[in-house]
Order: sequence, then structure tokens, then C-alpha cells
Amino acid sequence: MSREEIGITVTKDGDFSQWYTQVVLKAEVADYAPVKGLIVLRPDGYSVWESIRAGLDERFSRRGIRNGFLPVLIPESLLRKEEEHFSGFDPEVFWVTHSGDSEIGDRLALRPTSETLAYSLYSKWIRSWRDLPLKINFWNTALRAEIKGTKPFLRTSEFLWQEGHTVHATREEAEEEVLEVLDIYRRTAEEELAIPVVTGRKSEKEKFVGAEYTTTMESMMPDGKALQMGTSHFLGQNFSRPFGVKFADRDNVEHLAWQTSWGVSWRLIGAMIMVHGDDVGLVLPPRVAPVQAVIIPIIPGKGGRQDVLLKAEGARRGLEGAGIRVHTDDRDGLTPGYKFNHWELKGIPLRIEIGPRDIRDGRAVVVTRHDGKKGSVPLDGMPGRIREILDSVQAEMLERARRTMEERTSGASSYQELRRGIAAGGFVRAGWCGGRECEERIKEETGGEIRVIPFGGGGDGGGRCVCCGARGMASPLFARGY
Amino acid sequence: MSREEIGITVTKDGDFSQWYTQVVLKAEVADYAPVKGLIVLRPDGYSVWESIRAGLDERFSRRGIRNGFLPVLIPESLLRKEEEHFSGFDPEVFWVTHSGDSEIGDRLALRPTSETLAYSLYSKWIRSWRDLPLKINFWNTALRAEIKGTKPFLRTSEFLWQEGHTVHATREEAEEEVLEVLDIYRRTAEEELAIPVVTGRKSEKEKFVGAEYTTTMESMMPDGKALQMGTSHFLGQNFSRPFGVKFADRDNVEHLAWQTSWGVSWRLIGAMIMVHGDDVGLVLPPRVAPVQAVIIPIIPGKGGRQDVLLKAEGARRGLEGAGIRVHTDDRDGLTPGYKFNHWELKGIPLRIEIGPRDIRDGRAVVVTRHDGKKGSVPLDGMPGRIREILDSVQAEMLERARRTMEERTSGASSYQELRRGIAAGGFVRAGWCGGRECEERIKEETGGEIRVIPFGGGGDGGGRCVCCGARGMASPLFARGY
Repeated sequence: MSREEIGITVTKDGDFSQWYTQVVLKAEVADYAPVKGLIVLRPDGYSVWESIRAGLDERFSRRGIRNGFLPVLIPESLLRKEEEHFSGFDPEVFWVTHSGDSEIGDRLALRPTSETLAYSLYSKWIRSWRDLPLKINFWNTALRAEIKGTKPFLRTSEFLWQEGHTVHATREEAEEEVLEVLDIYRRTAEEELAIPVVTGRKSEKEKFVGAEYTTTMESMMPDGKALQMGTSHFLGQNFSRPFGVKFADRDNVEHLAWQTSWGVSWRLIGAMIMVHGDDVGLVLPPRVAPVQAVIIPIIPGKGGRQDVLLKAEGARRGLEGAGIRVHTDDRDGLTPGYKFNHWELKGIPLRIEIGPRDIRDGRAVVVTRHDGKKGSVPLDGMPGRIREILDSVQAEMLERARRTMEERTSGASSYQELRRGIAAGGFVRAGWCGGRECEERIKEETGGEIRVIPFGGGGDGGGRCVCCGARGMASPLFARGY
Repeated sequence: MSREEIGITVTKDGDFSQWYTQVVLKAEVADYAPVKGLIVLRPDGYSVWESIRAGLDERFSRRGIRNGFLPVLIPESLLRKEEEHFSGFDPEVFWVTHSGDSEIGDRLALRPTSETLAYSLYSKWIRSWRDLPLKINFWNTALRAEIKGTKPFLRTSEFLWQEGHTVHATREEAEEEVLEVLDIYRRTAEEELAIPVVTGRKSEKEKFVGAEYTTTMESMMPDGKALQMGTSHFLGQNFSRPFGVKFADRDNVEHLAWQTSWGVSWRLIGAMIMVHGDDVGLVLPPRVAPVQAVIIPIIPGKGGRQDVLLKAEGARRGLEGAGIRVHTDDRDGLTPGYKFNHWELKGIPLRIEIGPRDIRDGRAVVVTRHDGKKGSVPLDGMPGRIREILDSVQAEMLERARRTMEERTSGASSYQELRRGIAAGGFVRAGWCGGRECEERIKEETGGEIRVIPFGGGGDGGGRCVCCGARGMASPLFARGY
């Protein structure tokens, strides 16, 4: 392959959509499956998902949330049990009608989400207050046929996610769970993926079908469109009623339970690629990078080869021993330049070069991927220094992304300003009366949706609705969205 | 619920099948899903799967095997590309024919296994010898409609498993991979689940459709039936040919690659329940138990309550600090006896009782689940002692299961002996000419299948075929199977 075929051939600013697809494919994060709208995760992409999963599992576990398994097939009759909920998924459901040559009576849906299945089981498992709270999370995939244009990680007909489903004795406890989980999501986005988010509520129009209300975390992508990064729903008793999720309290009186559900998907990987990537390729935050540092031995033309390889191996062992994910690229027959390009395309956070001159100086050259800066570290005590550099790369990436998001967030005090702001891209904060009519008019005329009504108000919540001029109830962030 | 409803109401010897179902359901390992033939894993069951997964991931990783993700939907045309392979799954395939109200042109199969999908991708990903070996594992589910009676973990229409697919430049390297993976499986069964296995080859008749040969590990269940616990296949070039999995070698000449595939499923959990469980319920090997030790504070009638709870909490912290999975059952209003029964039913390896008398003596009572033996350990230095006990429980469980398997393995030097041996249950070792005709006659007349042709021969491989009297080629283990 020529250099052009291997590297990214468009710029991020020039053709964002094409750039994104090239990074996904050429950095070997994912590939297209033979069915339109489906993708495959290659090891370097799946590894990011494994890091996200490990981090969430640890945080879930501290809150007493445990994992379980649900099958992918749900009978049509069960899925229809909560009609409003079903209608939200109906056009996207994949239907299994045959096994072998036999037709199946009650058609089977491929899980678009598991509320109905989980709660039909919960109603059997829960008898008394002693069984509460019940908190189970499921790492699986959801299937929703995408009719519109598909995009790896953002819009695919099957996607990896986790869906959590909890049951509580009181409304207060359930509402607290909704917020605690959203906070776990926020920390995952910010601390692991270095992506800043805004948390808050969805409007009635945008909430999850069947929920009493939906909380969300939203982020801003470089093309000015907002991305929903995760949602946590308070279901109230909307599902416990039709599914009979009840418990006998200490007084032996039976009550309907209070429920929550919540999920994040591999969209997080898509967001990470879009937010941090650059014209050269992928840029991975150290916390989720499959390889955090790659060592490139610079082999001299004649002599000294063994020396360099020995030093490189010593450095590798030291780093590995310190818990750093490290790889040495000692492939023969490839130039250092070729290797630099390779690992830059793949977004590895740190490159460590060790050659004869470096060994003489007792140092190694270190290049950070996110800003391309070159420095050096002493070979002695390298692991501690590399750990510090990785930590500061992680912090700098979040800081840089936060500044960008702030630059892309403006306020509008008139309808004209709102329209201009949305056309320009980014979040626009504006007063809103709370009415569906205004929300829909704004969407229709400007393309901007209410992405999130931030917790704690937007500062000018007391202002006027930019659409109808009535007293403002809230200051949502409007934006075009994915 | 009455005591009878909570506990196991039949004996393992008396009604093995009913006993098994009761243990699965009452120990809260799994439950039935609303679709016949599908089950749900509850957290205590899924946790065992997570332990198996973590152990395998670590072992796979040391061999350079990494994880990826494949979608569940495979176009019919692709699945049919290797016809012999397809014919092996044809009657069991679930077919998706609609998404929403739209009919799908090329029907989509729910993955019965992923060879065809993986290799259509591998053929794109592999260009040269530098891309080999390629070793990817997928943790997913497979779907095969079970028409015969279903049984949790052993026969379900969707099952959790891992499927690994590797590609190599040479036959030798691929064949070595087949054996190394089988050895990883053996160690998982024996070291993690305390289940002894026999490893070897499947006969031509019993091999995986599409493989050149299949290696297997088999174990013996208490009802005298053999269970296939995992298989590792040498695919030769049977798939690389139709799918075009080729590589340019160092000499720039293009070659067909050599492939392997292999998998274990949640059958391992079913085997663990059958092999170790007893009339009281589940018995978990410490290595995979979600809780390894449960502390039951024995609260005195009056006074001393705080003392006991404090000591129990101290013990819990100490054990947790030592990396032992420990839980304190300090629920109010339940008698110690009730709690003992509860945790015995759930198979927790170790019970630690701490009461006022124990505190006075500076010791705690310890009861091991697998043999019901009672002892005591000093409260000081408890974690080290508990770790030792858990290790010896693990070893004793494997040892006991190994003795049982040996007792259930006999040799037959005549057809009559083979017939009697198979009717009695267990493995029967017998000489076999290698011919399909004899294999089929034996299956038909005695119900015994060739489960495995053990590596290294069965000792009397030079004997005569018990069926036709011709010179024996091998000494397989025959048995009825699941």
C-alpha cells in the first residue's frame, strides 16, 4: 500500500465525516460487517470497550450493582405489554419468524432494550422488602434497525452497551440511584475518556418512552453537533404497575416498587475518536489506550544493535512492572519513520525512542501524541517519570476538550440569536417557557433540539422564553444533534 | 414460603434431573426466560461466568490472543458459503425476516457460530506474513434452536460462550495452537472448576462440521453420562480456501492460511453444579464462588450484640484485605439456623460463625461446605488460615471428583462387556478398528458414543476392535452423552 492508502487522506476540518470513517477503519478500531449498518470491533477498538467496562464494573460494584445475563429474544406479546414503550421501538425491531424451517407462533423480537423482559422476571424474584433494593446490570447488545444513514459507533443496528435495571422500596431511593448512576457515567466520560459533559434532564418530548423523566449527559462534537453520551431514567411505577413488580413491606402490606433504568453504549468510543482525533489519526486518552507507551528501538546502521535491543527490553520490563501497558516495536525491515507513522495513526499516547546516542546520554526521547511535543527522560527511574507524563497527558486532554466545549457554548437572549447560534454549531443556552409548542417550533425552524436542561439552572433561568416571550421556566442547551 | 419450598425436595441420587433443576432455580443461579429453551443468569450464576472469563482472558492474553466483537446477524448467503458447515447448523438456525414492517431480502441468521463471518473479515485484514498469526477471541452468545428437551446450561437455544479464531502461516503452528488452547481449557476445568477431564480427539463422525479434526475435553457426570466440556478444532485450509484467507509470505508468494477455532460455553457451569452439588444444594469451588466465605454473627439473647458485630466486622475487613471474597450476613430477624441453610443451599464454600463464646476463646467456628466438617480458627491471623482452608477445599474437591470419575471408568475387552458397561453408566474404554460402521453399530445397539480418543492411547490400543474383531487402531472412551 502506498503512504496515502495507509494514512488519513482528508483533514478533520475539511471533511469531518470522511475523516471520522477513515480514522475508524485505518486505525483498525472497527470495520464494516457484511450486513449494512453493522460493524465489527477489532482488538484495538474492543480493548477500549473493555477498559470502559472494567471502570464501570468497579464503580457499579461499589454501589452494590451486580451483573446478570438476559437472552436476546423477547416474545412479541411481552414487548407489547407496555404499549407506549413498545410504540417507541416498533419500527426498529428485528423479528425472528422461523427456526430452521418451522414458523414461530409468537414472533420473537431481538432485544431493542430489556425493560419488559427484566421486569417480568423481577416480579417473580421480588417478594418482600428484604429483596430490595435489587440492582442488576447487563452487558449485552441492543438491536434497533437503523433506517437513516449509519455511522460506526453512533448509529448502528446492533450496538454494545450496558443496561442497568434497579428496583427500590421508595421513590426517594430510586431517584437517588438515577443521579448516582448518572454521576458514575459523568466520571467515566471525564476521567477515563477525557470528554467533558453537561448533565441534566431531558425535556418531556425527548425523554425515554415509558420513563417518568430522563437524565442525560451530553457532549459537543467538533462539527458543532451534540452527542447524547448516556442516560439514566426514573421509571416511577410506570413499569411496576403493568408487570406487577410488588413487595410486601415490613408491615406486610403490598406496595408497587419504584424503578430505574440506565445505559451507556459504545457511542462513547465514537465520541472519543471525534473529540480527540486529529489529521494524523486517532488520539487515545492514556486511561483507555490498549497500549499506553510504545518503545521504538533505533537500530544503528552497523554495530550496537544488541545494545539497543537490550536497553529497550530493560525499559519495557520496567514499565510493565510499574503497571504501564507497553509494547516494543522491534519489527525488522521497517524504518523508524514508518513505525512512528504507524503508532501515531493508531493514537498511542506516548512514543519512547531508544537509540545509541540516547543510551550514551542515559536518556530516551519521549514524544506525546496529543500535542506532538518532544522531550526526554532519564533511563534510570523511567517508570515513575512515564507514569507522571501519562497522567498529565490525560489531564491535558480533558482540559483542552473542556476549553473547546466552552468556546462552542453561547447564550441567546432572542430568537434571532438562537437561530444564528444553532446555525453556527455548538450549544446555545436560551430561556424557555417549558411548553412543547415552542420546543417543536424551535426544532422545526432552527434544527436545534433541547439536548439537556442542565442541573442547577443555566444562570438565566428567570429570563423570558426566546420563542414566545413568556416567563422562562428553564434555560436548556439547544443544539443540533447526532 | 415453607422450608420445603425453599430447600431442595429431592435427592441427587433419587431424581437427578429434578434435583439439578431445583438447584439451578433455588440457589438462584439461573431462571427460565419467557421463551422456551432460554434461560436468564442471576447475579450469583453470572458471577461464576465472570470468574471463568477472567481466568481464560488472562491465559489467552499470555498467548497473544486478544478479544474482539462480532455482530449477531449473519446474511444467509455468507453462512451458506461453506455448504458442509452450513448443513451442520441448518435446522437449528433462527431467521430474522423483518425489521419493523419491512421484509429483509437476504434473510439474516442469528449466529450459530461465527466462522463464516470472521473469515470473510480475516480475508480483508490479512495481507502478508507480518499480519500473522492473527488470534482473536469473541465473548458472545450463540443461538441454536433446541428442539429436543432443554436443560439449563446444557441444552439451551441461546448460550454464553467464547469462540476463538486464529490464523497461522504454517500447519504446524496452527496444530500447536489447537493443543495449547485445549490445555488452557483443561486447566480451567480442573484448576478453577475442580472438574477432572479427559482430553483427546473426536472421531471423524463426531468432529466439528468443517474441521479437519476436533480435539475435546470430556467429563463424567454423576448420572453416568459424559459431557463435552470444550472443543478445539484444527480447520486446516477448509475455510481459508472458500473465504480466501491468504497471505504473501516473505518470498512474496501468496499462500492459503491455516486456521483453528475453539470454544467453551456456560456448560461448564452446568457441569460444576452436577459434579459438586449435593442433597442440600449447590457446592461451589472457592476459585469461582461469588462469595468464598460468609460470616454469620451469632447474636446472644441479651447484651454483647455490639461486641459480636464489631468482631465480625473486624474479621470481614481482614479477609477482604487479604483478597478473599467475603460477606457478612447480619440480617435482623432471621435465626442463625435459617442463615446456615440459606448459604448452604447457595453453595458458599466456607461458613464462619462468630459468637460471644468464640470471642472469649479468641477463635471462630469454621464449617466447610463440601464435606460439612466443622473446625475452628484463631481470630488472630485469620486471613492466612482461611486462605489455606480455601486452597485445600479447592484441591479436595478436584481430588474427590477425580476419584469418582476413575470409579466410573472401566475397560471392556468384548462387545458384551462394552454393552454392560455402557448400560451401567460411565466411561468404557474399548478397542476400536477405526471404522465408522462399527462406531455406528455400537451407538445404535448400546447407546454409547465415542466421546474421546484419549491422547497417548488408552493403554490397550493394540487390542482388537470389540465390535468386528479387527486389529484395534485406538482405544476410545465410549459413553452415553448429554
